[in-house]
Amino acid sequence: MTVRIAVAGASGYAGGELLRLLLGHPDVEIGALTANSSAGDQLLKHQPHLLPLADRQLQDTTVETLRGHDVVFLALPHGHSAELAAQLGDDTVVIDCGADHRLTSADDWTRWYGGTHAGSWPYGLPELPGHREKLVNARRVAVPGCYPTVSSLALAPAVDLIEDEVVIVAVSGTSGAGKSLKTNLLGSEVMGSASAYGVGGAHRHTPEISQNLSGAAGRPVKVSFTPVLAPMSRGILATCTATLRGGGDVRDVRAAYEKAYADEPFVHLLPEGMWPTTNAVLGSNAVQLQVIVDADLNRLVVVAAVDNLAKGTAGAAVQCMNLALGLPETTGLSTVGVAP
Amino acid sequence: MTVRIAVAGASGYAGGELLRLLLGHPDVEIGALTANSSAGDQLLKHQPHLLPLADRQLQDTTVETLRGHDVVFLALPHGHSAELAAQLGDDTVVIDCGADHRLTSADDWTRWYGGTHAGSWPYGLPELPGHREKLVNARRVAVPGCYPTVSSLALAPAVDLIEDEVVIVAVSGTSGAGKSLKTNLLGSEVMGSASAYGVGGAHRHTPEISQNLSGAAGRPVKVSFTPVLAPMSRGILATCTATLRGGGDVRDVRAAYEKAYADEPFVHLLPEGMWPTTNAVLGSNAVQLQVIVDADLNRLVVVAAVDNLAKGTAGAAVQCMNLALGLPETTGLSTVGVAP
Amino acid sequence: MTVRIAVAGASGYAGGELLRLLLGHPDVEIGALTANSSAGDQLLKHQPHLLPLADRQLQDTTVETLRGHDVVFLALPHGHSAELAAQLGDDTVVIDCGADHRLTSADDWTRWYGGTHAGSWPYGLPELPGHREKLVNARRVAVPGCYPTVSSLALAPAVDLIEDEVVIVAVSGTSGAGKSLKTNLLGSEVMGSASAYGVGGAHRHTPEISQNLSGAAGRPVKVSFTPVLAPMSRGILATCTATLRGGGDVRDVRAAYEKAYADEPFVHLLPEGMWPTTNAVLGSNAVQLQVIVDADLNRLVVVAAVDNLAKGTAGAAVQCMNLALGLPETTGLSTVGVAP
Amino acid sequence: MTVRIAVAGASGYAGGELLRLLLGHPDVEIGALTANSSAGDQLLKHQPHLLPLADRQLQDTTVETLRGHDVVFLALPHGHSAELAAQLGDDTVVIDCGADHRLTSADDWTRWYGGTHAGSWPYGLPELPGHREKLVNARRVAVPGCYPTVSSLALAPAVDLIEDEVVIVAVSGTSGAGKSLKTNLLGSEVMGSASAYGVGGAHRHTPEISQNLSGAAGRPVKVSFTPVLAPMSRGILATCTATLRGGGDVRDVRAAYEKAYADEPFVHLLPEGMWPTTNAVLGSNAVQLQVIVDADLNRLVVVAAVDNLAKGTAGAAVQCMNLALGLPETTGLSTVGVAP
Repeated sequence: MTVRIAVAGASGYAGGELLRLLLGHPDVEIGALTANSSAGDQLLKHQPHLLPLADRQLQDTTVETLRGHDVVFLALPHGHSAELAAQLGDDTVVIDCGADHRLTSADDWTRWYGGTHAGSWPYGLPELPGHREKLVNARRVAVPGCYPTVSSLALAPAVDLIEDEVVIVAVSGTSGAGKSLKTNLLGSEVMGSASAYGVGGAHRHTPEISQNLSGAAGRPVKVSFTPVLAPMSRGILATCTATLRGGGDVRDVRAAYEKAYADEPFVHLLPEGMWPTTNAVLGSNAVQLQVIVDADLNRLVVVAAVDNLAKGTAGAAVQCMNLALGLPETTGLSTVGVAP
Repeated sequence: MTVRIAVAGASGYAGGELLRLLLGHPDVEIGALTANSSAGDQLLKHQPHLLPLADRQLQDTTVETLRGHDVVFLALPHGHSAELAAQLGDDTVVIDCGADHRLTSADDWTRWYGGTHAGSWPYGLPELPGHREKLVNARRVAVPGCYPTVSSLALAPAVDLIEDEVVIVAVSGTSGAGKSLKTNLLGSEVMGSASAYGVGGAHRHTPEISQNLSGAAGRPVKVSFTPVLAPMSRGILATCTATLRGGGDVRDVRAAYEKAYADEPFVHLLPEGMWPTTNAVLGSNAVQLQVIVDADLNRLVVVAAVDNLAKGTAGAAVQCMNLALGLPETTGLSTVGVAP
Repeated sequence: MTVRIAVAGASGYAGGELLRLLLGHPDVEIGALTANSSAGDQLLKHQPHLLPLADRQLQDTTVETLRGHDVVFLALPHGHSAELAAQLGDDTVVIDCGADHRLTSADDWTRWYGGTHAGSWPYGLPELPGHREKLVNARRVAVPGCYPTVSSLALAPAVDLIEDEVVIVAVSGTSGAGKSLKTNLLGSEVMGSASAYGVGGAHRHTPEISQNLSGAAGRPVKVSFTPVLAPMSRGILATCTATLRGGGDVRDVRAAYEKAYADEPFVHLLPEGMWPTTNAVLGSNAVQLQVIVDADLNRLVVVAAVDNLAKGTAGAAVQCMNLALGLPETTGLSTVGVAP
Repeated sequence: MTVRIAVAGASGYAGGELLRLLLGHPDVEIGALTANSSAGDQLLKHQPHLLPLADRQLQDTTVETLRGHDVVFLALPHGHSAELAAQLGDDTVVIDCGADHRLTSADDWTRWYGGTHAGSWPYGLPELPGHREKLVNARRVAVPGCYPTVSSLALAPAVDLIEDEVVIVAVSGTSGAGKSLKTNLLGSEVMGSASAYGVGGAHRHTPEISQNLSGAAGRPVKVSFTPVLAPMSRGILATCTATLRGGGDVRDVRAAYEKAYADEPFVHLLPEGMWPTTNAVLGSNAVQLQVIVDADLNRLVVVAAVDNLAKGTAGAAVQCMNLALGLPETTGLSTVGVAP
């Protein structure tokens, strides 16, 4: 079986990571690569690490260019996918790395993104209860945000054990902000410095995390979410904490996580005493977790690491493609990080 | 007035930062510089940035060497200061950058550090209510830990407005861990990676933060504290959050901070919309703060930045020396950071 | 004596570093601060590390705004200083951190910068033989480029000992490229990566280095110069090498450097066996050097470190202001770096 | 065909990278993993990025443990491989990532490493003329040093065009120095700083580069080599320069490189105008090159990028294993980097 794929937004970080992974996928043939302002350029100019595609040129992002592929990956700013998907039809699997179809609540969409909601698609986090089955044979997939991926996997197994409010502080590398030219993303500003942004519920991933945890819990779970930019290109380390409902025996908590992820190939609860680091998951599709109970406060603390571009975006997209096409879920994906 | 000072532990990061600041202090003459395993070395070998002291040699850390100075700064591992201070007598102002005399509770000491408590000294955080007056003319000062400094200043003005439990996640540079040779502190491990440590209440600064906030509140305040190591040498960015007691009007909160810090030369509430970055305080004695209320959760979020070696350690030590000696509190200290 | 100064280009990195240093200068009063596209903004928005200037606003860069100061620092792109200086008149000392007046050869100017040469001004590298005396009481100063500063000081004492061709490879932090919004300067691109640029004689600092070494030698010295961008905000480490003319006794070489810099407060030949690091000079006006002879090739190798923004730009500017005004040359400047 | 392999030194950086690559090699089964002081530990403690080997334990490095594998990779300090190889016999392919058998000159060995030379083995740089054929079916392979790999590939195609002396300055990440606990390798020291070491011909890779270039040229080529440590974990960017013998037409030079590497899968001359960056080759087996002629000096400048741990060590080792076993040379290796 050869799957012919296209990538819209191939000049950016998510697009580059998609191509890096797809070049290692045994069943994939890489078709059209499109961009907006960079259309016409050699891909290599924007993605010098993708040597096997050195002779490829970026085309305009149009339906005509994208049509005729088995799978189209969209790595575009939000607001573009609904129309493109409608025109591509159901012959084509469309996997959207953007935000358009992640939220189920139109009110949430309007509040955090503005404008009209384009509707929701199957949500590409198969490790979250109830989602894998909707991804099998899906024609449309909304790839989760990077923060929601790691935060939801960090807390979902514990939702029955905790109170209704969680506090998450997630340290992220800068590639999550994309290649956009902003002064605060310059190397000179970023190196040697940490900074918070989107504080106080302003970050658009807040309602997505809440949606996931509420869905897993079957009741509303509120989320205090603070993202912090750290001087690294990739990786998210999320510290997730919540008050425990009953007595906080760490063995019970640990058992819940072991049970939840026993059969998951990509989510790994570390042995007791080991704590996750982002470089251990760099470039990989793995999520590494550790849990502890702070007995003085009867509070659960979970620390989780993910590569925001890999499992946090492009790896999840490939995983969902596998599910949608009936391929083994782990094809072309790895739990081996690139360290140091 | 010329103050003759000595530094015990001059080969380490805290000792080096003390000397950097003291070289810029107009009233100070630098006397003995001592070390342990590095005694006998040229200081420059360990502190190549301190060119004006290029001809200085490190001596052994003994009472004989330290005696005869007006002020002795101790930048030593915990467990050494009580005996040294006792032998130095009250002629000498002793300023301890270590942990020995920070905690007032002997039980807390024994639980987090082990062994017998050496007693508490005036606590060197003058911006915390009730402390400045005890530092004036003090003969002994316990310099606060770096995390407690930034966390306490971030939350103290709000203690009357919040519930009794706070959650703090603080991203730190690696110099806080000192020059100790540990694999996880190697550049190859640290660069490009974030990691948590001391999770679940295990970090020794947890009881110190709790002591400070409880003291400011006049009631017990519990602290969930998670430190995260980020790929930078210096700087702490603390995200501090707590549920508000009453209605969460950000103007009331902001007014509390403005009032608390109106006359403080080193603590700066940023204009609305600006968020702290650690490079803005690098090398300086400033703390930069911003506050917001997350209305969905009625939760206060405060983000604060400090240089762990400067205001977080050595700058505070110099500030306390000024207070102890009756010098203007800001002498030799600056609120200007080294950026980018 | 109070010197009233203005800074044109106060929103950029060179402007910010000028203000950082001038805030510590005892004889300076900071007047107008100007910018181009950022005029009207609070300075703090662009320079959050300059807290003492938190209430200052950026004005337009016009002659009217700059007039009436004793000293005007220009931290502007090249091409602007000649006209501004002409309008300011000789009452005002004009210190140009840009390139307009560094080169003495109009042909070199036209070849590397294009357009017409605006003429040369006294060259602000007092440690280079023949230059200090021209800076005393100067009304106009051309501050050297950052690479020429460190490269020229690294090789000038040896020009009589070496052949006519030198090879320089200089590793630089990213702040030398300014705050300009370019994809290759994004943190995500820069962190974890090294890259060369301006290779093969294309960098505009090449003729300036050649001019300096030729001037010191009294004969043409050719320069192979390759700048390399490294993942750090500040600092240049230059490796400078040339074949020795006679027998290569390192003691002779060392003696030449010791003699050349014996009375220089800012240039420091390290003790044998110590090699420079950029963090030892971070934020300082010092240059640290080490020399060695590779006996197998009879080749001199000099390694030198400088902070590109401090001694490499703004520190040199302040040093030149001191000379121009008859102040002690080291006023407001330090040889103490900020490390680690 | 299943090749059973063992790795001696599996707890270090080279060992970890070998395992990362071998986990992706379709024909390999991973057998014994040994260490010295870490024997008995879980591998995951030292290599948390190698999740598929999470249940593996490190054994002692003994002949008994290593015997019975088809291929044994040695990632040990120099001085250990000769005796181990002798005991393993010719049934086993031994691939030594250390230095013991790289140099052909016993005098060079004694001068740079001390002690007695253990003899030379086929040299694992197949892209260097004359070497690939010796690696086919080899029973012993000496994997080149990281600096010699990139420097030799950067200059070998030009040896007939240049004079007999080359100057190389190579910027390296810190993982090349291994996991050894040295103060100058601490993150706090490394981040934000650049430093040179082994200056003046002292670095042990100097004679190896000279051996390679002299071999390619058929005449002695002298090497001035300066390594510079930069704040990144991986990657080497080498700037290599030499005076051209005849007229310096860049087209001739370029043609020589195109010819030399036309059929090489891992060495890539970039399109004109593009310059190598280390992050483009991170984790990959590729070398990226660019060449230019500085007309003013008639000097060739070549800039080349490699991942010191991948193609610079472990990737080369796998490539040599493929050649030794008659597998396709590129099996399990990639030219796709992990960027940003």
